[in-house]
Amino acid sequence: MNAPVSQFVPEPPVVAIVGATGVVGREVLQCLEDRGTPVASIRLLASARSAGQTLSFKGAHLPVEEVADHQFDGVNIVFFCAGATVSRRYAPVAAKAGAVVVDNSSAFRMDPTVPLIVPEANGSQIVPHAGIIANPNCVAAIATVVLAALQRCWSISRLNLVTYQSASGGGAAAMDELRDATSAKLNGDDYAPNAMPHPYAFNLFSHNSDVDGETGYNGEELKVIEETRRILSQPKLPIGVTCVRVPVLRAHSIALSVRFDHFVDVEQVRARLENAPGVRLVDDRDSNHFPMPSEATGEYDVLVGRIRRDLGDPTGHTIAMFICGDQLLKGAALNAVQIAETLLALGAAQEAA
Amino acid sequence: MNAPVSQFVPEPPVVAIVGATGVVGREVLQCLEDRGTPVASIRLLASARSAGQTLSFKGAHLPVEEVADHQFDGVNIVFFCAGATVSRRYAPVAAKAGAVVVDNSSAFRMDPTVPLIVPEANGSQIVPHAGIIANPNCVAAIATVVLAALQRCWSISRLNLVTYQSASGGGAAAMDELRDATSAKLNGDDYAPNAMPHPYAFNLFSHNSDVDGETGYNGEELKVIEETRRILSQPKLPIGVTCVRVPVLRAHSIALSVRFDHFVDVEQVRARLENAPGVRLVDDRDSNHFPMPSEATGEYDVLVGRIRRDLGDPTGHTIAMFICGDQLLKGAALNAVQIAETLLALGAAQEAA
Repeated sequence: MNAPVSQFVPEPPVVAIVGATGVVGREVLQCLEDRGTPVASIRLLASARSAGQTLSFKGAHLPVEEVADHQFDGVNIVFFCAGATVSRRYAPVAAKAGAVVVDNSSAFRMDPTVPLIVPEANGSQIVPHAGIIANPNCVAAIATVVLAALQRCWSISRLNLVTYQSASGGGAAAMDELRDATSAKLNGDDYAPNAMPHPYAFNLFSHNSDVDGETGYNGEELKVIEETRRILSQPKLPIGVTCVRVPVLRAHSIALSVRFDHFVDVEQVRARLENAPGVRLVDDRDSNHFPMPSEATGEYDVLVGRIRRDLGDPTGHTIAMFICGDQLLKGAALNAVQIAETLLALGAAQEAA
Repeated sequence: MNAPVSQFVPEPPVVAIVGATGVVGREVLQCLEDRGTPVASIRLLASARSAGQTLSFKGAHLPVEEVADHQFDGVNIVFFCAGATVSRRYAPVAAKAGAVVVDNSSAFRMDPTVPLIVPEANGSQIVPHAGIIANPNCVAAIATVVLAALQRCWSISRLNLVTYQSASGGGAAAMDELRDATSAKLNGDDYAPNAMPHPYAFNLFSHNSDVDGETGYNGEELKVIEETRRILSQPKLPIGVTCVRVPVLRAHSIALSVRFDHFVDVEQVRARLENAPGVRLVDDRDSNHFPMPSEATGEYDVLVGRIRRDLGDPTGHTIAMFICGDQLLKGAALNAVQIAETLLALGAAQEAA
């Protein structure tokens, strides 16, 4: 990654999506269309197995081609949505060819030369980059939209996150397994788990990433800790986290406790979040209406509610809340497209200057 | 409740179950049979609507009769499993008639003359009583089995509980709704929520009890705080709690953080819980096997795992864990039957003395 790269992207850019037929790749394509993100043309890339399919974009049927080194020639932005192994293999190739990579995988997230970006939280850190920009873990992305809005007003001294994570984090296979296993259970049929390590019908389980034998934290939890610290620029922030997979299709929920350095009024937190970009307040105590996956699904905003003082902290410095975000949108594809839009806006500003 | 009552119960006792046809009433009957709890005879009571049904007990078919004041004559133990309104109306009548009431509702749980009992935690506080003994809220019962075992070794200074609560807490109607709404969703049909305030298929929502407009805590959360403090005899213990209903049928899960006065070794906590009554350790990091509702369902023990240091507490005094318990068993019927068994054991000890 020491080849000279352009920090900016011409508008409209030539775009490529690697892993275009996966759940996240399809959502990136949909976001580009729905948001009217400027695009000159799109190249859809995938494994040999998926090549030959077509996907629709603005009424056209685009062919899916097999990913290969030469496919990045002349491309300005590449979204990588095919997992860390593919990103490690092809992202440096794309960057060397002059594209800016927006990488959805965990491959480069903790690389200090690779910005890890949630535009609402730390968009200004997108430059300088060396051709690759990382899209965070879904829980970190959803949480930091809210946390960064708070951090701008009040110093955060500790966090606790307990998650309710949807099947979509495990891809289309996990979503299918949740539907199929549940259907089998309702019909009294047997179902052998395949995409997930445990029965998924009307069940929940500790996140399916490997558990560190030393600390007892799983891979997902360690990502949440490291990436949240990095996005908030608080490298030593104490963060407690428990990641759990629940039988929900595509929105993550998080019970979040935020400890501030000083006493903060609950109403001030509510007012702050009511006006924060990317956040929608759903906090109606009278009608017991708070964030739910069913209402977060398909939404760009992260829903926030149940804002109240955390009675577990006798200092009164901690505020509890409950948040929901679409795992495939703010947790993945939408944030990636927002990163691309941030690059385009910077390029436009550069040109005007 | 100022009538003279016997503190003890003769063995084998004449037993009555009020709300016998409900989900908890049926489980009480099943527990009495499965555990071989000494019983002279059983009277099954319910509302006029359910009277006339029969339920099986040890191979016999027992009639369900309508609850009425005279039905408590000659009864030694009555399990109330029909909600707070019925308990408020009939429990004092049963106690006055000389029975000891084991009340599953919230009606008397915070009455200082009524012991609130989880036998493994505070069984010795069952006497003195004034004819009524309260069975705790399901989350409080499941959590305090674990917490009391820890509290005997180390002082607890704070708690944080985030729940994943099953449909069964809302009774048979809620369990049916979860199945029916999910089936409709899988078939692409509409389903209007009825037992629950929000869509339940592949969705979760903040607990359906009323929310206090002042504090933002819902009724379930306030019960968990008050009852956990009472069972642990720590009336001012700071407790943070978030109660959430998830699409699981009958086992509750809790992400639990316990802060101790001093540094406690994770291995010591694990060893303590491995040997605690009513607790089963499920904590295999290598195979990612931890407590799950699917494995807690139908079990008497509360499953405990994911025992690790809570990285959100920079003092290192906090241990995080994940627990699952059958909501209808340890969270309701089993604990009620264990209370009755505790009374019988005390009566036997009294007689021997």
